Amino acid sequence: MSELMEIEPPFVFESGGFADHTTPLVRDCWYIAGRSGEISRNIISRRLLGVDVALYRTLAGEPIAVRNRCPHRSFPLAKGKLVGDILVCGYHGMQFDPSGHCVNMPSMPIVPTNASVRTFPVVERAPLVWIWMGDPDKADEALVPGTHWLSDPLWKSVTGDFHMQSDYVSMHENLLDQTHFPFLHPGTVGTPEYARSKLNVREEGDVVIIDRALRNSAPPGIYGIPAGIMDKKVDRLSEARFASPAIHTAFAKIIDLAPDAGKQAEYRFNITHLITPETQTSIHYWWFNSRNFKLDDADADQFLSDASTQAYLEDVDALQWILEVVRKDHEKQFDLNFAPDKPALLMRRSLYHRAAAEAGYRL
Amino acid sequence: MSELMEIEPPFVFESGGFADHTTPLVRDCWYIAGRSGEISRNIISRRLLGVDVALYRTLAGEPIAVRNRCPHRSFPLAKGKLVGDILVCGYHGMQFDPSGHCVNMPSMPIVPTNASVRTFPVVERAPLVWIWMGDPDKADEALVPGTHWLSDPLWKSVTGDFHMQSDYVSMHENLLDQTHFPFLHPGTVGTPEYARSKLNVREEGDVVIIDRALRNSAPPGIYGIPAGIMDKKVDRLSEARFASPAIHTAFAKIIDLAPDAGKQAEYRFNITHLITPETQTSIHYWWFNSRNFKLDDADADQFLSDASTQAYLEDVDALQWILEVVRKDHEKQFDLNFAPDKPALLMRRSLYHRAAAEAGYRL
Amino acid sequence: MSELMEIEPPFVFESGGFADHTTPLVRDCWYIAGRSGEISRNIISRRLLGVDVALYRTLAGEPIAVRNRCPHRSFPLAKGKLVGDILVCGYHGMQFDPSGHCVNMPSMPIVPTNASVRTFPVVERAPLVWIWMGDPDKADEALVPGTHWLSDPLWKSVTGDFHMQSDYVSMHENLLDQTHFPFLHPGTVGTPEYARSKLNVREEGDVVIIDRALRNSAPPGIYGIPAGIMDKKVDRLSEARFASPAIHTAFAKIIDLAPDAGKQAEYRFNITHLITPETQTSIHYWWFNSRNFKLDDADADQFLSDASTQAYLEDVDALQWILEVVRKDHEKQFDLNFAPDKPALLMRRSLYHRAAAEAGYRL
Repeated sequence: MSELMEIEPPFVFESGGFADHTTPLVRDCWYIAGRSGEISRNIISRRLLGVDVALYRTLAGEPIAVRNRCPHRSFPLAKGKLVGDILVCGYHGMQFDPSGHCVNMPSMPIVPTNASVRTFPVVERAPLVWIWMGDPDKADEALVPGTHWLSDPLWKSVTGDFHMQSDYVSMHENLLDQTHFPFLHPGTVGTPEYARSKLNVREEGDVVIIDRALRNSAPPGIYGIPAGIMDKKVDRLSEARFASPAIHTAFAKIIDLAPDAGKQAEYRFNITHLITPETQTSIHYWWFNSRNFKLDDADADQFLSDASTQAYLEDVDALQWILEVVRKDHEKQFDLNFAPDKPALLMRRSLYHRAAAEAGYRL
Repeated sequence: MSELMEIEPPFVFESGGFADHTTPLVRDCWYIAGRSGEISRNIISRRLLGVDVALYRTLAGEPIAVRNRCPHRSFPLAKGKLVGDILVCGYHGMQFDPSGHCVNMPSMPIVPTNASVRTFPVVERAPLVWIWMGDPDKADEALVPGTHWLSDPLWKSVTGDFHMQSDYVSMHENLLDQTHFPFLHPGTVGTPEYARSKLNVREEGDVVIIDRALRNSAPPGIYGIPAGIMDKKVDRLSEARFASPAIHTAFAKIIDLAPDAGKQAEYRFNITHLITPETQTSIHYWWFNSRNFKLDDADADQFLSDASTQAYLEDVDALQWILEVVRKDHEKQFDLNFAPDKPALLMRRSLYHRAAAEAGYRL
Repeated sequence: MSELMEIEPPFVFESGGFADHTTPLVRDCWYIAGRSGEISRNIISRRLLGVDVALYRTLAGEPIAVRNRCPHRSFPLAKGKLVGDILVCGYHGMQFDPSGHCVNMPSMPIVPTNASVRTFPVVERAPLVWIWMGDPDKADEALVPGTHWLSDPLWKSVTGDFHMQSDYVSMHENLLDQTHFPFLHPGTVGTPEYARSKLNVREEGDVVIIDRALRNSAPPGIYGIPAGIMDKKVDRLSEARFASPAIHTAFAKIIDLAPDAGKQAEYRFNITHLITPETQTSIHYWWFNSRNFKLDDADADQFLSDASTQAYLEDVDALQWILEVVRKDHEKQFDLNFAPDKPALLMRRSLYHRAAAEAGYRL
């Protein structure tokens, strides 16, 4: 029985819905399969959107993703081995080329050429490898979200990851919601003035964007300390973006209103949150905190790594607690919504409509 | 998915039934939420009848029980904090007064006054705090079972507790059944003469009472040793009472037929068993062994604590083994009943009828 | 809820089917309950085909198998005790003779003579005790598979066992399949010549037999090393037999084509695989590697024990990985079959038809 069947099947879509952890996952989307450095000549396996995937590189270095299940007797292919670019099953030695086609079955006098293992489209944009778990005909590389700052030499990133018992809907809701900052992250992000500044919300297709501009105010520590401008007044322009079910970006521009002689006025931070559902109730989560200044400053690295880890761990704890409550509670609860939940509700409506469309529903 | 769904829903009541671990729990009843000392200014959570409850005290010391789930985004409120008498959610800072009404939502310009979290009626009778998980309109304080001996200075108690993987039906059956004493508790309770003495059974409404009188016989060690009358002949009068789904009391009166000069003739023991289902297959269990003599005798305390713990642990083991057998067995078994099971069957019929009535069935 | 309900009930048989891990278990069959030495005056319990069984010996040494669940209050009888040949329940002292009939219920003035606990037919063929979990009217001792070599003084055996998270269908398939030898067991069994030798397959009723003859070739290490004939040319005659759902035997005869003076020409190995499903997804597995030469040679014992343990552990790992993949995978897969899978498919068809017949289906 599939672990996904923890969620009651079949799911019936109704008009006017908002996604939650029971909604089928959006599959027609580029998700992260892993960091570039995780995928190598040593085959690894990872569960992505409920499917076990084996990941490896060809001799030429191309990342390959195949279903981690031999089509003959369901042996996990990641337990097999690579011979050149050929993936050899560990049970009967069935051989697959990088396109998934069987090129030899040792126990057979002729090659069963119609045999194959499913492969998944992958695209590498270092330091990330993206995968498409949905309809392969829709796997357009042009849809891979831009993350140029992660490899741009004019930017410097610190990074980390979590394996969470949560759902991607709640995770995206958390990222689009800044009203929790003073309560869940009292030590790190969010100042009272910021929480009160006007929030603008807009949709661009399936993308939900919020932005704020806070003028002539003290910077929060997480930006002001690494920039070394805690005693200054700044303009703070920020944008958070549900770019896709797989990625949320948060960009901040801090403008020192009276820069010291010889110092820059503008400090930029690009935060990248990458979310791949493992199942409907667990996710792989990678984060990057990138800046365009003090590129070689180990103290800034350490400060931003520590502060990010602390804040994201608070989010991880909260989201895991919530899913545990929701799943084990005896009585169903229909959560209340308030005006500040609007960005999250736009995101949840979009996820719901995309999942329904993939399932062939017209809402 | 709720853990309660381990039990196949929906349950259909049929006439003539006896409760077992699959029968819905009786909710209209005062159950123990915890010991008085467990509930403080530090919020705790406890699962009671399948519902997570957050427990704390106001500044004035009043115990408060609220559903451990914020109505906004299901954050467990026990992970929040108290500011005075206000419970503050740890996610978005939503504030609730002790009646459960929202008194502030920081992200909103006005208070969403129609928002609230469910609270549960509680009554403190030290050293116990009782809670009503059913229809609040029926939560009559007059229905709280009497346990005055637990706080009466003329009595002294030793106490303990267990978290058990068993069901409250089997637990009450075990407590109403004395024919297991010589087999499950060979070292502690039950003498052969006692087992053979006449048992009287009666019902008073939903209460099931059994009593026995054994005249002019040797006392069992568990009573005779702390009283210091092991060499005497005694009359032994005992009553055991299924007082409610939450409490079983066992009272014993030992009468020394030839008391030594200057010594009392009557020794009384009141045993209190308090049972709160956590789910249909796990329970919180607290016990008290109270006596009306040697109130300051540390040896008597130690003896009664050790003997009780040993005997109740034997019951806990047996009941856990049984539920494990019942739940994992491939084939259903309809247990045989014998004449000595009558008190337990009266209790099980009562539980069944109460559960059916709460579910709106007329049997 | 029964653990067996992990498999979706009810199972519907369709014509043309092949058993897999979801097919109901064949119950009308002698299975191993345990080794003779495991069953003693100390009662043990073991789950066999989804049913908890208590196993003990009478004073006369006869092995007895009873359902591990008292018919009165479901107490596990293996937690009780033996008084002579009487099994006494540990809860209320209910007493059962070796036939399962109640001979005393201490709390009752008369014996409830119609009360009994289910017993299972058992037959001891040292070093094994066989049990029949199906219809007792069909439990014909003549159906106990022959394993005389396990107790014959002209044979010597080494042995081991595993508790596996796999299903008996996949286990039997693995045993009937020799094409995996070079890939899963590269160090131990299977030479390239052997893999290419002609395989004969035949059915005799429900028995599936494969055999091979490889002439004038080098022996594989697992046979040649203990026989001390690694430098010789041999004829190798081998037969593997799905003898029943409970037992697979593999017999090998190695004939030294030029035996040294005074040495034997024929070396025989009988491998016995004994498989009892614990549930549909876990099995008890015992193996014996028996030989008819060097009976007192400790080095041969050690070599064969080590080599067998290594090879079978490779099988155990593979089968456990496969079942984990099959059970947790989000998408159903219909495994491809190739010509060399024929023996396994005959076995799977036979298991399917036997299970259907037991369930009353006519396919």
